[in-house]
Amino acid sequence: MKDKFRVGLIRVLTSDDQDFVNIHGNIIMEHFPGIEVISKCIPDQWEGIHDDETEAIAIPKIVKTAHEFEDIDMIIVSCADDPGVEELRKEFPNIPVTGGGETTVAVASKYGKKFGVLGIIDDAPHSYHKHAADKLHTIKRPEGVYNAVDLLTPGGIDGCVASAKQMAEEGADVIALACTGLTNIGVASGIEKEVGIPVVDPVIAEGLFAYFESIKRKL
Amino acid sequence: MKDKFRVGLIRVLTSDDQDFVNIHGNIIMEHFPGIEVISKCIPDQWEGIHDDETEAIAIPKIVKTAHEFEDIDMIIVSCADDPGVEELRKEFPNIPVTGGGETTVAVASKYGKKFGVLGIIDDAPHSYHKHAADKLHTIKRPEGVYNAVDLLTPGGIDGCVASAKQMAEEGADVIALACTGLTNIGVASGIEKEVGIPVVDPVIAEGLFAYFESIKRKL
Repeated sequence: MKDKFRVGLIRVLTSDDQDFVNIHGNIIMEHFPGIEVISKCIPDQWEGIHDDETEAIAIPKIVKTAHEFEDIDMIIVSCADDPGVEELRKEFPNIPVTGGGETTVAVASKYGKKFGVLGIIDDAPHSYHKHAADKLHTIKRPEGVYNAVDLLTPGGIDGCVASAKQMAEEGADVIALACTGLTNIGVASGIEKEVGIPVVDPVIAEGLFAYFESIKRKL
Repeated sequence: MKDKFRVGLIRVLTSDDQDFVNIHGNIIMEHFPGIEVISKCIPDQWEGIHDDETEAIAIPKIVKTAHEFEDIDMIIVSCADDPGVEELRKEFPNIPVTGGGETTVAVASKYGKKFGVLGIIDDAPHSYHKHAADKLHTIKRPEGVYNAVDLLTPGGIDGCVASAKQMAEEGADVIALACTGLTNIGVASGIEKEVGIPVVDPVIAEGLFAYFESIKRKL
């Protein structure tokens, strides 16, 4: 038996910098022992996925990238919209496949029934509509943010906290982050402290279900 | 800062045997590092909770038992019906409180939309109706089983596997165990292997969310 539960993680934001590509995987490995994450990004998608067109273009690249992993126990598409997750389930029927969307929604459903969705578009990701249509309460995009790269600009974090606060005031009982770019800037704990309602980070949610799968192997 | 994230876990099945009381806590500590579980059971409830009356009697005992823990970071009522969880949230507003029901339902919602509920009564627990009414697909009780103690009789496991198989054949896409007594007999992995659809064990689900809370402390 192998020592580690090996997860192939796909980033949908292209980067030449492997350290940047590894950010999500490193967060998962930091918090979930026994898991080894191998990270790859899809090519030629320098602003990630932020609308239907960029999603459609990404899906065949995601499937191709998944085939480049070797000897993995699970695949994570590390994006809140779960792009390609259904396609990958068909391609890899014998291992678990998940994404940031369905995992975030599942974890958030433990904490509330009125999701405040904080992301980079004016709507919730498709995955949130698909899995929690009845729980989408308020949806906000921080001012001036239109893609994952914009989150890295000055004011990105403050804008996120302000939007989350507003959603809580409007009645949201849990904040579901709707872009893994929010993980990169680490806003979850800041929002939770400032706003006082639970916040679910997609990369932590992915890690939680990877960990659950790794436990099931041992039961 | 303390080394461990300390969870007070309440069993709703009375026992004089502390090793038996510790079973759920030991499973959580085995799979989730950094968590210390202190287990107590409520008094005078030798057949646990298995109907409205036994639940009503248990709730004040659960609240009283919770007050006997010292220096804890979280409370788990280790029962699939979440008895007393709402009451405990009011009593202990500054720490997370959860139960086997809401956590199982949340985890199961990642895996399917048609829950096969396997438990010890002919209906799903209140908590499953409360949190996943739209996802309860099929509900079964193994033949001859009416309470948590009956599960320990010969044939208990086979009956569970047979019931789960039947639910899968009827269209369930995930099995949500609906009694922590099923954890005690360890049926989850057996069902998953035999029936081939994901199975969510309430004690593992409780542990998963305890682990999530312990991670949030570190973010």
